[in-house]
Amino acid sequence: METRKLKIAIFGGSGYGGSELLRILLFHPNAEIVLVTANEHAGKAVGEAHKNLSGLTDLRFEKAPEDLSALENFDVAFFALPHGQALKLVPQMPDSVKVIDLSGDFRIGDAEIFRKFYKLERDVNDLQKQFVYGLTETNREAIKGANYIANPGCFATATLLALAPVVKGGLLTGKIIVDAKTGSSGSGAKAAANTHHPQRMNSFYAYKPFEHQHVPEIEQHLREVGTFKNDFVFMTHSLPVSRGIFASVYLETTNILTNKDLKNLYEHFYKDSFFVRIVEGSPDINWVKTTNFCDIAAHSNGKQIAVFAAIDNLVKGAAGQAVQNMNLMFGFDEKTSLIFAGSNP
Amino acid sequence: METRKLKIAIFGGSGYGGSELLRILLFHPNAEIVLVTANEHAGKAVGEAHKNLSGLTDLRFEKAPEDLSALENFDVAFFALPHGQALKLVPQMPDSVKVIDLSGDFRIGDAEIFRKFYKLERDVNDLQKQFVYGLTETNREAIKGANYIANPGCFATATLLALAPVVKGGLLTGKIIVDAKTGSSGSGAKAAANTHHPQRMNSFYAYKPFEHQHVPEIEQHLREVGTFKNDFVFMTHSLPVSRGIFASVYLETTNILTNKDLKNLYEHFYKDSFFVRIVEGSPDINWVKTTNFCDIAAHSNGKQIAVFAAIDNLVKGAAGQAVQNMNLMFGFDEKTSLIFAGSNP
Amino acid sequence: METRKLKIAIFGGSGYGGSELLRILLFHPNAEIVLVTANEHAGKAVGEAHKNLSGLTDLRFEKAPEDLSALENFDVAFFALPHGQALKLVPQMPDSVKVIDLSGDFRIGDAEIFRKFYKLERDVNDLQKQFVYGLTETNREAIKGANYIANPGCFATATLLALAPVVKGGLLTGKIIVDAKTGSSGSGAKAAANTHHPQRMNSFYAYKPFEHQHVPEIEQHLREVGTFKNDFVFMTHSLPVSRGIFASVYLETTNILTNKDLKNLYEHFYKDSFFVRIVEGSPDINWVKTTNFCDIAAHSNGKQIAVFAAIDNLVKGAAGQAVQNMNLMFGFDEKTSLIFAGSNP
Amino acid sequence: METRKLKIAIFGGSGYGGSELLRILLFHPNAEIVLVTANEHAGKAVGEAHKNLSGLTDLRFEKAPEDLSALENFDVAFFALPHGQALKLVPQMPDSVKVIDLSGDFRIGDAEIFRKFYKLERDVNDLQKQFVYGLTETNREAIKGANYIANPGCFATATLLALAPVVKGGLLTGKIIVDAKTGSSGSGAKAAANTHHPQRMNSFYAYKPFEHQHVPEIEQHLREVGTFKNDFVFMTHSLPVSRGIFASVYLETTNILTNKDLKNLYEHFYKDSFFVRIVEGSPDINWVKTTNFCDIAAHSNGKQIAVFAAIDNLVKGAAGQAVQNMNLMFGFDEKTSLIFAGSNP
Repeated sequence: METRKLKIAIFGGSGYGGSELLRILLFHPNAEIVLVTANEHAGKAVGEAHKNLSGLTDLRFEKAPEDLSALENFDVAFFALPHGQALKLVPQMPDSVKVIDLSGDFRIGDAEIFRKFYKLERDVNDLQKQFVYGLTETNREAIKGANYIANPGCFATATLLALAPVVKGGLLTGKIIVDAKTGSSGSGAKAAANTHHPQRMNSFYAYKPFEHQHVPEIEQHLREVGTFKNDFVFMTHSLPVSRGIFASVYLETTNILTNKDLKNLYEHFYKDSFFVRIVEGSPDINWVKTTNFCDIAAHSNGKQIAVFAAIDNLVKGAAGQAVQNMNLMFGFDEKTSLIFAGSNP
Repeated sequence: METRKLKIAIFGGSGYGGSELLRILLFHPNAEIVLVTANEHAGKAVGEAHKNLSGLTDLRFEKAPEDLSALENFDVAFFALPHGQALKLVPQMPDSVKVIDLSGDFRIGDAEIFRKFYKLERDVNDLQKQFVYGLTETNREAIKGANYIANPGCFATATLLALAPVVKGGLLTGKIIVDAKTGSSGSGAKAAANTHHPQRMNSFYAYKPFEHQHVPEIEQHLREVGTFKNDFVFMTHSLPVSRGIFASVYLETTNILTNKDLKNLYEHFYKDSFFVRIVEGSPDINWVKTTNFCDIAAHSNGKQIAVFAAIDNLVKGAAGQAVQNMNLMFGFDEKTSLIFAGSNP
Repeated sequence: METRKLKIAIFGGSGYGGSELLRILLFHPNAEIVLVTANEHAGKAVGEAHKNLSGLTDLRFEKAPEDLSALENFDVAFFALPHGQALKLVPQMPDSVKVIDLSGDFRIGDAEIFRKFYKLERDVNDLQKQFVYGLTETNREAIKGANYIANPGCFATATLLALAPVVKGGLLTGKIIVDAKTGSSGSGAKAAANTHHPQRMNSFYAYKPFEHQHVPEIEQHLREVGTFKNDFVFMTHSLPVSRGIFASVYLETTNILTNKDLKNLYEHFYKDSFFVRIVEGSPDINWVKTTNFCDIAAHSNGKQIAVFAAIDNLVKGAAGQAVQNMNLMFGFDEKTSLIFAGSNP
Repeated sequence: METRKLKIAIFGGSGYGGSELLRILLFHPNAEIVLVTANEHAGKAVGEAHKNLSGLTDLRFEKAPEDLSALENFDVAFFALPHGQALKLVPQMPDSVKVIDLSGDFRIGDAEIFRKFYKLERDVNDLQKQFVYGLTETNREAIKGANYIANPGCFATATLLALAPVVKGGLLTGKIIVDAKTGSSGSGAKAAANTHHPQRMNSFYAYKPFEHQHVPEIEQHLREVGTFKNDFVFMTHSLPVSRGIFASVYLETTNILTNKDLKNLYEHFYKDSFFVRIVEGSPDINWVKTTNFCDIAAHSNGKQIAVFAAIDNLVKGAAGQAVQNMNLMFGFDEKTSLIFAGSNP
């Protein structure tokens, strides 16, 4: 067993992505968080902002260093910042430090598409080409050798894990409809009108019809996984729970697949993937909340197929998968520090 | 203004359908609830079972009469009973009493399909033929002259109101995907594992894949509304809210329709329908909860169309629509006793 | 029956207090809302901000007039503004217009205590003396003759209705403990950290220990209701529901009272008060939500008494009681436009 | 470090207490769960009933053995059964097996009081005398030497941890009021009317006024902690969250204590208790959910004191504290397998 401790920096420790990175990495046997930044909380104890961590760490938030070359003896840096910030910081990082970016800044290869969906200019497209898309289960070998990881979006993770076996198998025909739903933590740690409790607790609504920024990374990665030229409809909705993503994926296959065929297909595809569980009936976000699991069920009506995938948006959809990727990049078991159970209830 | 008071019987007053019928009819200027049955609560005050009604009525639950011919001087009877019970009771009702059945017993014309989806035998198919399907907005004239109403299911109401303008316009092509979600009150007033609060409050899951019993009534009524021969995928999910249905309907049209075309189409179709509101962006179940409104928004991506519809499952999806139909059957304004606002928050 | 329509102005129509005033007054047979202000929404349709009212009114928000003397032919003005604003506006109102203020600006007689709890300076203490405290059930006669109403706070309403029968009866001895809980709508319509859904939905916590600004109005009004010199401990907590206040009041009485004595005491005290319901076991905010009811239960352990009171903070705790008071001030039945049922579920 | 693995039996593995014992003990470095019973689930995989554990264990539920003497080579047995069942099973256990009972069967010394509150007959009062009350923080030394642990009730744990420093310090005077609130998981894993989601999600109510069965164990243990002869009012309420207990404790002290005095008192009392955190302002059940922490804050108004305590009812209030006690009984660090963070959000 590798026993050394990686020196870790977390940029953006006060949001929910940072909160979950801290929750996981503080208990990682091979990790030492040396720096965690949060400009507005600089000097404050981590356990004061994330009271769940009170009593569990003496770490304090710091301002990001002016000169990032000072981080040269770090092993890895996580960026859990709002879109557009890693774009400026990562180019300043010493080459010796591996980078895992949880934002969308480096996910999209095509600069034009990036500009369209993110409304940001990216003048570091050469750097972007060095980024490996961090969907662990479909990209494991590339991740092992990567120095730069673009960690997938939460919706993209659930959708891609639901689609990969079918696309890889070359079984897909016709259009795909993805009806995706997210919990309120997907909107981040800052209070806003759409997460105001009195209204949100009784709400369900759609948003960003046909325009969600996860669409291009899903399409791009499906083309990496297999042949993909299909019409793709992706619709996001807001759920009145704190955590969780549920994707209902509707598709057709070239051959008729029975429920049993589907089960075999998915179980085989994910046979070496501890964190994907093929379940009966339907997954439920209740069973994956706070965990790194993705639960999947697939059903056939003969011609029509429905695949359901559930994850925790902040764990498998963000910080958990980021640590899973870190584990692979440094030769650790990918499950290290990620085998924790959700709870019942 | 018609000022007489209809003599009303409610069979099944202790469930949520009955609860909402009471809430609405107690304040209806032309209604007098003379009988409300609930076998297990017989003798108990209505306000004791439905504590929201405490202080507002002196009504008591009664056992259903053995001999239904005793009801001959009633004007109308509502049946809000579990599936299979109206099937036995309605044939015993005097011809002079109009009937509004909130269950699925008389919705499906084809006895074979009824048997398949409801696992019930129906030997009163002649009687079934006299039933008019009570989707008010598409069937108004037939309802006015009806003696028997099969009140639509909650999922069916939201789905049909989303689809009717497109089907009526002959604009539909290709398959339809409906991703439908319901609040927990859709499971009824009796406690059960799937509505156990500790788990349900953090849950979202799919159920009955490809098998929901509302499918046949939707397909049947779409054929009444226009030409409908399309593949139809219908999937139901459970939401952690008390009330509300949200249907996301994905379809393609023969012609390219812009967002503006869609808005015109829907506004024109529902121009005389007070309870359908065409909204910007997305409907939200928060804004229709406890009301008889159906809020609808439609979006186009060129080829692909998404239509969102939100209702309260117990009002427009059950008791409210039932009263709306009663109003039409007896010559009252269809809005009578149904113009009440939801609340913010 | 008085059939004329009062000309009504609402200052502050975009918050939750204003939202509920609109919901109630739009359906009031003797009310015509002529002006509703909301500076940041000026020009916007009311149904756009309060989407529950979409389709139910053509009213638009306006800026508050510069010169309030222009309102001289109004009958009544409601002020549903943040604390401190009515303080400036009410003195400018024409004498001919009755005023109902939902804020705390004019509730406290003692200017020093007002300053301490509200951190505001009040140089209109003479005007304050004309204000009648609008707890309808204890102050009905004074309200009928009032031109100025200081509408009670939400916590104060629940607490005072629980305590009034005991204090009026001169039965109180020893100290009082009030453990009060509020839903998230009590924090208002603006998003804030303490109402951020991802956290609030799993939260319960105490706030403002020993310092809540409703303490002085409760103590002041108890001295008006009867003899009150007791120690008074009042503690507020936050509940993860949208609407509702629940007050648990612990006290001792001079004589031993049985449960039956208590029931008699409360039923007698509130025998002419339609909106107070004495219930068995415990009230539940579920049964009063969106209504003007206050449900109360009282239990005795011999020496120790516990009284529970539940209201909707925005209705009986704000807008509903304000309309109840308006009804009395203008000679209408106090129940006018306020007899609506909550819902089950 | 002790590295042996204890052989463990869990009686009652299908309820929430059992569920949490499994979640904790499956990851305990010194524990091996050899037997977990659940009569109605016998033969079923644990991960099928507790889907959060799917993929994490191959354990299956078994029927409880007819002859408990067969368990003689076990180290410890947990009983997580409904009240009254451990009463029958524990006397049949071999003396060599240590027992930790999560029910109320052996908590109360006085058989008469036990009968009154639990409506059960206990003919094994000699056995009861060997039970040590398992409130870890106040009873650590006795627990280390115990063979039988009566694990405290959830309400009792929060209340006693809030009161112990004051009672131990001899500072208490006058009566105590405890206003306690619990999440819905406190009602257990079986669906029931009071946990029916459509209603519960909007509910808050009091129950069992003056009669909760945790009262006698609280009073009994306060007399063990210090001198306690005070009037004690204890009131339980139901919260619409899944997990968590919040106790608001109102008391008076013989001397005037400032906020700072209180902080010192509590920090000193719990200076060696890792799982008690003295916090600013108020604890929040959000920060302790799924953890073994008890967060406490105390405030003074001069004469009046309010102490707030928050725990997770199923962890510190049940399974977590049970494992904490097991750790002490077998010489392990009491924190073993219990240092896990809650989450934000």
